[in-house]
Amino acid sequence: MSKFWSPFVKDLVPYVPGEQPKLAKLVKLNTNENPYGPSPKAIEAMQAELNDNLRLYPDPSGERLKQAVADYYGVQPAQVFVGNGSDEVLAHAFHGLFQHDKPLLFPDISYSFYPVYCGLYGIASEQIALDPQFQIRVEDYARPNGGIVFPNPNAPTGCVLALEAIEQLLTANPDSVVLVDEAYIDFGGQSAIALVDKYPNLLVTQTLSKSRSLAGLRVGIAVGHPELIEALERIKNSFNSYPLDRMAIAGAAAAFEDRAYFEQTCRQVIESRDAVVAGLEGLGFEVLPSAANFVFASHPGKDAATLAAGLREQGVIVRHFKQQRIAQFLRISIGTPEQNQALLDALSGL
Amino acid sequence: MSKFWSPFVKDLVPYVPGEQPKLAKLVKLNTNENPYGPSPKAIEAMQAELNDNLRLYPDPSGERLKQAVADYYGVQPAQVFVGNGSDEVLAHAFHGLFQHDKPLLFPDISYSFYPVYCGLYGIASEQIALDPQFQIRVEDYARPNGGIVFPNPNAPTGCVLALEAIEQLLTANPDSVVLVDEAYIDFGGQSAIALVDKYPNLLVTQTLSKSRSLAGLRVGIAVGHPELIEALERIKNSFNSYPLDRMAIAGAAAAFEDRAYFEQTCRQVIESRDAVVAGLEGLGFEVLPSAANFVFASHPGKDAATLAAGLREQGVIVRHFKQQRIAQFLRISIGTPEQNQALLDALSGL
Repeated sequence: MSKFWSPFVKDLVPYVPGEQPKLAKLVKLNTNENPYGPSPKAIEAMQAELNDNLRLYPDPSGERLKQAVADYYGVQPAQVFVGNGSDEVLAHAFHGLFQHDKPLLFPDISYSFYPVYCGLYGIASEQIALDPQFQIRVEDYARPNGGIVFPNPNAPTGCVLALEAIEQLLTANPDSVVLVDEAYIDFGGQSAIALVDKYPNLLVTQTLSKSRSLAGLRVGIAVGHPELIEALERIKNSFNSYPLDRMAIAGAAAAFEDRAYFEQTCRQVIESRDAVVAGLEGLGFEVLPSAANFVFASHPGKDAATLAAGLREQGVIVRHFKQQRIAQFLRISIGTPEQNQALLDALSGL
Repeated sequence: MSKFWSPFVKDLVPYVPGEQPKLAKLVKLNTNENPYGPSPKAIEAMQAELNDNLRLYPDPSGERLKQAVADYYGVQPAQVFVGNGSDEVLAHAFHGLFQHDKPLLFPDISYSFYPVYCGLYGIASEQIALDPQFQIRVEDYARPNGGIVFPNPNAPTGCVLALEAIEQLLTANPDSVVLVDEAYIDFGGQSAIALVDKYPNLLVTQTLSKSRSLAGLRVGIAVGHPELIEALERIKNSFNSYPLDRMAIAGAAAAFEDRAYFEQTCRQVIESRDAVVAGLEGLGFEVLPSAANFVFASHPGKDAATLAAGLREQGVIVRHFKQQRIAQFLRISIGTPEQNQALLDALSGL
């Protein structure tokens, strides 16, 4: 602690991202990246921006990208917000929409950045336990709140909540924003963006880091009622006028425009997931039902931390969380068929 | 105002950036961009990142860039912070270092984002009037404060404060952070980074948007004592783990490594500035002494807003601020010799 710090800084417990190892040879199944590259049209679009025009500021509102998202989802650009990764979008949403007297509600097992944002912005929160099958039980959210947030599919479990259950939450909480964080929605869930015209209290965030294979570019979006988007724009324009660089705007827009490539690579990941689940079950693992590009698996006879360490010795990295309820699980990203086989081979010897 | 907003959102007065017009033919002298493109080596370095590896997250701490900055300035990487434009770096610094009981001090005429950050983070502030020649008078800052911030050279005046005066501020305020915002330092000032080993209360920010001609890439840095950098890292890691994309890290590092190109283009801008000042004075303008890549000029017989509108009709855009003390000034970015001539030609007819 330094005397120069704003007092709250000493109490911050920052988020710890998954390791980004510098060794190239690892089978990297720890941060849910896409095993396939981005759309070739996204690469082309970025290429077209890589020139002396980088001396000029980008469009501060990223209109080209907002339009591409609006076209993709059949909404208006005024219902779309864009930012420097969905983490930035989430941070602005927490800051602009969740600082209320009543606590923010989120599942006890979910994205571990949520309590960090609460610390950053002084937001009171209550964690609601998932049921014994690690599912969100909508009834448990029937309590006073200043907002509700959860990933759908949930992370790190991979379990998806049906749109009907989300509608129950929206209807039961007309005075609170319900933020559905759809980082993994394209691998098996139905996007709640279909509901934004019906519920003014619904905000949906997505990232281009998973299904659109652009983790290295840092782009996230939010879709919701223009009044909610306005709160995000007011924060953004009081924080950083130009969060997206020229290549990010162009590449992300092109990624939304290339539906065929997107659908094909999502399908490949989903097929691989089925194979990984079958392989893991063959080795005696129990695997939660996953609608994401990862699986959450535990073995009744083997310690998860020991397994993770053993995998690492064989050059395969997966994610293990020390958190109590899930300490006996491994979160394993879906890789290419070759990477998935390497994982199963390594596990079979442990 | 929406019932869903956090209460402070309705009181935000967001920053208004200079216009980014979509017409390509304009002589754009309104946002202090560099008239020359970025280093060809920066373009090359970004090109090398433009591939399928964009599916992978970038290095969350941007070590390659921190090392390049450390090498350039002869400091340690632990004294360097990097972010998504100097606006993001400044936002984190305001949040992490200026939330104190005593007010933050900054000049009445300076970067108009400072009061916006104060609104965003609930920071009390006092604006200290520049002297009648629009200079910072160090004695005026001898009052209780929770921090001091100013651009050097100042914006939009272009006037520079000598390092000796900055040392006086640092010595007189050992319990406050003094943030020197050096967006324009490379066009004629001496960087206070030379003082960071001597003063633990000094933080210096810079942008790659001006002298390094990468406004379209969104990269900013801060240099200071590791304790100050730690506050910024704690905020950053509680906000967005990966603020810089793969191309931004590589391109910005290469820009710092290419000293020759940097020095040559800065020299060209400085020479052009001398010519613009002479031209403006020849037309009867009074021009404040500038150490930046813009000049701040007024005409004793002509209204500034009228001049700005007249220039715009001729396809030349400059920046005019409605703020009281400076409403009769134009801020004019230094362009290529051809652009500067177009400006002078247009002005001579007004």
